[in-house]
Amino acid sequence: MANRTYGEIPGYPVGSTFVNRTDLAASGVHRPLQAGISGGKDGADSIVVSGGYIDDEDHGDEIIYTGQGGNHPVTKRQIADQTLTRGNVGLARSQLEGLPIRVIRGAHRGSIHAPAEGLRYDGLFRVVDHWPQPGLDGYRIYRFRLVTLESSDPPPPPPPSAPTQASRAEAVIQRIIRSTQVAKSVKELHEYKCQICGVCLMTPAGPYAESAHIRGLGRPHNGPDVSENVLCLCPNHHVLFDTGALVIDAEGTVRDTLTGDAVGQLHLDVSHKVDWAYVDYHHETHIR
Amino acid sequence: MANRTYGEIPGYPVGSTFVNRTDLAASGVHRPLQAGISGGKDGADSIVVSGGYIDDEDHGDEIIYTGQGGNHPVTKRQIADQTLTRGNVGLARSQLEGLPIRVIRGAHRGSIHAPAEGLRYDGLFRVVDHWPQPGLDGYRIYRFRLVTLESSDPPPPPPPSAPTQASRAEAVIQRIIRSTQVAKSVKELHEYKCQICGVCLMTPAGPYAESAHIRGLGRPHNGPDVSENVLCLCPNHHVLFDTGALVIDAEGTVRDTLTGDAVGQLHLDVSHKVDWAYVDYHHETHIR
Repeated sequence: MANRTYGEIPGYPVGSTFVNRTDLAASGVHRPLQAGISGGKDGADSIVVSGGYIDDEDHGDEIIYTGQGGNHPVTKRQIADQTLTRGNVGLARSQLEGLPIRVIRGAHRGSIHAPAEGLRYDGLFRVVDHWPQPGLDGYRIYRFRLVTLESSDPPPPPPPSAPTQASRAEAVIQRIIRSTQVAKSVKELHEYKCQICGVCLMTPAGPYAESAHIRGLGRPHNGPDVSENVLCLCPNHHVLFDTGALVIDAEGTVRDTLTGDAVGQLHLDVSHKVDWAYVDYHHETHIR
Repeated sequence: MANRTYGEIPGYPVGSTFVNRTDLAASGVHRPLQAGISGGKDGADSIVVSGGYIDDEDHGDEIIYTGQGGNHPVTKRQIADQTLTRGNVGLARSQLEGLPIRVIRGAHRGSIHAPAEGLRYDGLFRVVDHWPQPGLDGYRIYRFRLVTLESSDPPPPPPPSAPTQASRAEAVIQRIIRSTQVAKSVKELHEYKCQICGVCLMTPAGPYAESAHIRGLGRPHNGPDVSENVLCLCPNHHVLFDTGALVIDAEGTVRDTLTGDAVGQLHLDVSHKVDWAYVDYHHETHIR
């Protein structure tokens, strides 16, 4: 595992500026001299937003960032599909683990958020989503949605006693499980049994299951909060479904996307109609 | 299931006042005429904080609330152990599902947060913890920690498009999975395999597991963030361990607290020492 430092680099507060990439790399705020993503299989700790990809979108508190790879070294045009490797898998890993990403903006035309010259450290973001899509040149690109930690991070729990104070400051949010009234009704219809494995977790406070929106609610998916777009899953299968480790094919067979193997059959109930268009959308988003 | 309304009652904003419990019940803000908790197996939707229990603590944005039952109808002293039933299981269920609780404060001496007379609706809280403990009279009581939704709720995700706007407003947070640097190192030592079932969830972004603090970090447990107090668990076993559906006995046997049956043996690794004092604390907290 690379020896990465996640979070703030001492001595370089938000707003710190750098003359060029050599100056930036020496600070430790973003170590690669050329790559836009500092990351690998263990996670990603920083990115440079410099307008290198035509598909990038910088909205200030929210950035849609294009993954690396597949482009011609000189023309910069995509000449091959991007894959979930190197910096791309690093950003996906940081999403899974809730690790903070330092965002550095470089001077370039076309963004009101970029500095006028050089590079500037603009604070910590977290990755909240990623998905593949066809890029402007027709090849598959990976895109990552990052939002500032201040706007996405729940406040810490009420103050603990002194010994845990320091550790709390280091805590990251890995996952936030949300539910809606629609989702609750779907769970009740299935009596809190996972539609993939049939398990129902029994706790002293009653049965527990999670609701998974098949086509995600947020941008860019904009799936609706209707029962036809919700599955009742155990937490383990929720993780596997949301990350695209599992997809569901047109026959309702649950498949492992790493091996292509069938691992089961989606449990359906006459009282809960699933809209197959959402299942197809999820499948296409996670096909590799 | 009872036909409860969770969240705000139309026409009764924060600060609404009521002459007495009959007036309050008629409004729908808190329907029971006597009970402090409006709740059952499906969840709890409101509580009245009125100083009826000597163990209650009202800190304004945070309330430590005592469960119901086991007390003498006249003297109000505890004469039996409380159980996780009726309103108590309702509050535990609302914690599990992330459901909001309306908090109504009644006039009583001894709290600067209580109204001078009558009753007042003071807004939505969520239950963030519950645990049994010996009460001042020696019998077991259940206590619930509630915090205001404004201070505990993560901001909603970035604005979705119009169709999901309404549903987002209804969304509740069921669980927030946090991790710390210490927790991350424990997961790496176990190669992301669950210490209860041995499962490792493989995702396109690498292996996924969660860290569980054995003795909780927050008040009132104040467990430390050290590797001896952390387990590496799959999400399913994390839920079962945190809710006390499973405990670990002195021999490392994992037991189902609903049936008392042994369901497995905790996987240990020479490189990760677990402090048995924390395991005992968890066991005692969840024994029924």
